[in-house]
Amino acid sequence: MEEREELTEERILEMLENRQYKELKEELENNMYPIDLADILEDFEQKQLVMVFRLLAKEEAAETFTYMNSDMRELLINALTDSELEEVMEEMYLDDTVDVLEEMPANVVDRLLMATDEETRQQINALLQYPEDSAGSVMNVDYIALRKEMTVAESIRKIRQVGLNKETIYTCYVTEKRRLIGVVDVKELLTTSESKTVEEIMDTNMLYAHTTDDQEEVARTITKYGLIALPIVDHEMCMVGIVTVDDAMYVLQEETTEDISIMAGVSPNEESYFGTSVISHVKNRLPWLMFLMLSATITQIIMNHYESALAVMPQLAGFIPMLMGTGGNCGSQSSTLVIRGLAVGEIEFGDIVKVIFKEIRVALLISVILSTVNGIRILVMGQGDVMIAVTIGLTMACTIILAKIVGCTLPLIAKKIGLDPAIMATPLISTLVDISTVTVYFAIVSLVFAI
Amino acid sequence: MEEREELTEERILEMLENRQYKELKEELENNMYPIDLADILEDFEQKQLVMVFRLLAKEEAAETFTYMNSDMRELLINALTDSELEEVMEEMYLDDTVDVLEEMPANVVDRLLMATDEETRQQINALLQYPEDSAGSVMNVDYIALRKEMTVAESIRKIRQVGLNKETIYTCYVTEKRRLIGVVDVKELLTTSESKTVEEIMDTNMLYAHTTDDQEEVARTITKYGLIALPIVDHEMCMVGIVTVDDAMYVLQEETTEDISIMAGVSPNEESYFGTSVISHVKNRLPWLMFLMLSATITQIIMNHYESALAVMPQLAGFIPMLMGTGGNCGSQSSTLVIRGLAVGEIEFGDIVKVIFKEIRVALLISVILSTVNGIRILVMGQGDVMIAVTIGLTMACTIILAKIVGCTLPLIAKKIGLDPAIMATPLISTLVDISTVTVYFAIVSLVFAI
Repeated sequence: MEEREELTEERILEMLENRQYKELKEELENNMYPIDLADILEDFEQKQLVMVFRLLAKEEAAETFTYMNSDMRELLINALTDSELEEVMEEMYLDDTVDVLEEMPANVVDRLLMATDEETRQQINALLQYPEDSAGSVMNVDYIALRKEMTVAESIRKIRQVGLNKETIYTCYVTEKRRLIGVVDVKELLTTSESKTVEEIMDTNMLYAHTTDDQEEVARTITKYGLIALPIVDHEMCMVGIVTVDDAMYVLQEETTEDISIMAGVSPNEESYFGTSVISHVKNRLPWLMFLMLSATITQIIMNHYESALAVMPQLAGFIPMLMGTGGNCGSQSSTLVIRGLAVGEIEFGDIVKVIFKEIRVALLISVILSTVNGIRILVMGQGDVMIAVTIGLTMACTIILAKIVGCTLPLIAKKIGLDPAIMATPLISTLVDISTVTVYFAIVSLVFAI
Repeated sequence: MEEREELTEERILEMLENRQYKELKEELENNMYPIDLADILEDFEQKQLVMVFRLLAKEEAAETFTYMNSDMRELLINALTDSELEEVMEEMYLDDTVDVLEEMPANVVDRLLMATDEETRQQINALLQYPEDSAGSVMNVDYIALRKEMTVAESIRKIRQVGLNKETIYTCYVTEKRRLIGVVDVKELLTTSESKTVEEIMDTNMLYAHTTDDQEEVARTITKYGLIALPIVDHEMCMVGIVTVDDAMYVLQEETTEDISIMAGVSPNEESYFGTSVISHVKNRLPWLMFLMLSATITQIIMNHYESALAVMPQLAGFIPMLMGTGGNCGSQSSTLVIRGLAVGEIEFGDIVKVIFKEIRVALLISVILSTVNGIRILVMGQGDVMIAVTIGLTMACTIILAKIVGCTLPLIAKKIGLDPAIMATPLISTLVDISTVTVYFAIVSLVFAI
C-alpha cells in the first residue's frame, strides 16, 4: 500500500550496530508507524528492544507499547526505570492502559500502578471492574463534553483548549448534571453560524449504549450507523465514556476470528497463531476432537449391528463415506449461512419457519439433482444395479433434507437458549448427520434387500 | 441498544391508514434512522412505500434510498416523477449513486443518469470504469483539499464554506497541482495556533492507496492504522478520492461473509440470505457438493478394492467413519486457523516452514492422546482385540498428522499461486483426508492381518 522507503528490521539492526543513534531516531520519527515498529521489535533481543524504545519520542513510545505482545511488554517494563515507565503511562490512553494491565502478572501491575497518579489510578480501577467483553471494558473515558447553553464559538474554543489530549474530538457530547442529553458533530460546529447555541444544533435523538452491553453489539451499532464513536452511559443515563470506531473495528475482527475458530471446533484464544504455544494449541483443539471421536462410536455401533448385511454385500460399505460426506457438506452449508446471518444481525430466531421452509425447498432441488447424477454414475461405473442406485438415491435424498433442516435449525435454537450459535457448525453437524445417515441407510437397505 | 420510543412498522401503517401524515412526517424526522427505515419499508406495498418516501426530508430520503435493496429501488424509481428523482440523486453521495446504478437494469440507469447534471454524469462514468472490488469502485470523490500556503485560520474558513457537502471533513488533504503531498487532521487545525501554515503542521509521511488496489487491502489498512479515511491516488500520485472508515467496515463485513461462505463450500453472492432465491441458493451450493460427491468415488473405489477383507472382517468397516471424522476435523482446524491468519495478515506464505513445524508438533501430541483413548475404548467396549486397537491407533495417528500438514499447507499454497485460500477449507480438506484415511487404513490392515 504505502510506498515510502522502508525502514526494515535489518536496517534498524545495522544502524544500532554502527551506533547511528541520531539517524535512527530521526528515521523512526519520520518513517515508521508504531504498529509496524511493534511488529518488527518482536524479533529483537531485550537489549536492542530497550535501545530502540529509548530513542522514541514519548508519544510514539506509548503507542508502540500498546501494540506489543505481553512478553515484549514484560521485557521492557523490567528494563525501564520508574521515571521512564511513568512517562509511558502518562502518554497512554486509559483504555489501552487497562488492556495492558489485564495481561500482566500482579507484581508488574503494582509497579505500573505506582507509576500513575492517584486520579488515573482510580479511573483504572473503575474500568477494571467492568465484565470482560462489555462496552465498559473497551470504552475510553476521555471525551469532550459541552453544555447546551454554550455557543458554537465557545464550543470550538473549548475543543481548542482540551482537545489535544482526547482520543477523538469529532463528536462532542452535551451533558446536563452528567446526564447525556444530546450530541454535536464537529462538522456541525464548523459549518454553522458561530453565534448559535449548542442546544439549537444538537441531535437529541442520539444512539448510545450501556456499560454492561456486549462489546460486539456496540461495534455492530457503530458499523451499522456509520458512527465515529458511540457514547456509553450508566443506568442513570450519566455519560461515562465513548467507544471509538477504531476500537469497534478491532472488536469485530477479534469476534469474527473467535466465531471462525469455534466453527472449526477450536476453542478461541486472544493470542495470535504464532503467539499460541504448541501445548495451548493442543488444549484448544483436543476437547472437540475427543468429543466428536467418542460420538462417532454411535455410528460404529449402528454399523456393527448390520455386520451380517455387510458380510453378504460388502460393496454397501463403499457408499458410506460418500453419503456421509454429502450429508455433512449439505449440513455445514446451511449452518454456516445461518450462523453468519445471525452474527451480522440479518437472521433472527423469529425467522425460524421462514429459514426451514427455504432450506427444505433448496434441499429438495439439490437432492433430486445429486441423487440422479449419482445413480447414473453407479450404473455407468458398474458399481451396482438399479436397485442399489435407487437405494443410494433414496438415502442420499433423505440425508440431504435432514442435514439441511438440522443445519439451519440448531444455530437458531442455540441463539435462542443463549449459547453461541457458532458451536453448531461443521464438526457437530457432521457427526449428527453421520449418525442419521447410517441409520437411514441401513433401514432402507433392510427394506429393499430384506437382509 | 437505543431506548427511544420505537416507531414500528405497525405504527407507521396505522398512521398511514388514519391519514396522520403530518404526525408521521414529524416522527420519521425525529425518531427514525434511514437504515432502520429501509429495513421496515422492505415489507411495504409499492403504494405505501412511495407515500412514506414522499414524507421524508430530501437528505433522509436519499440516505434511505441507498440502504434499500434493488427490488425496492426499482419500485420507487418507477413511481417517482423525474423531478423527485432528480432531488434524490442530487442528495446522494457519488459512491452510493454508483452502487445503485451497478444493480439497476439499463432502462432505469438511463432514467437515473438523465436526472443528474452533466458534471456528475461524467464523474459517475469515471467511477463505473474501476474494476469491481477495487479501491476506485468504493471511493468517494468528495473531500477537502488544502494548499500548503494556507494558514490554519484560512483552512478552517474553507472547511466552513465547502464542508457541508462532504461525506467526511475530519481529514484534509494537501495537494499541489492535484498531487497529494500531505494530510492534516481537523483535530490538528482546531488545536494549533491559527497563524501557522498548513505546510508547518501537515504530515507528509501519509498512508495512501491506488485506485486499482483491492478494496479489502484498503479496508485492512484503515483498520490497522485506525484511520478515519484513506486517500486514493492514481499512478501519478494525483488525488482522486477517499475511502472512509464506514465504507471500510462495510467492505470487511462483506469480505468476511464471502470468506466464510467459501469455507463452507458455498459460492458467495452479495445478496442477503433471504434476498437470495431458492434457485440461486441451489446454484451457489450445488457445484461444490457435486464435485465432492464425485471425488468421494475415489474413496469408494479403494474400499471396493478391499471388499474381500471387509467380507472376512466386516467390523473393520465400522471404524471408518470415526477415522475419517477425526481426520477431517483435525484438517479443518488447521486449515481454518491458517485461512483466518492469512485474511487478517498475521500469517504469510513465507511462514510456511514455521507453520508446518508447529502443526506437526501439535499433531503428534494430539495423535498420541486420541489413539490411546480410542484404543482403551475399543478394548473396554469389546469392539476388538489388542491387534485391532493397535491398527486403529496407528491409522489414526497417521491420519491426524497427514490431515494437519495438508490442512495448513494447502491454504498457504493457494495464496501463493493467487487463489483464494478460503477454498482450501473444510469440504475439500475432508475429501482429501477421506481418501488418504482409507488408503492408510487398508494398507495397515493388510500388513497386520495379512489379508
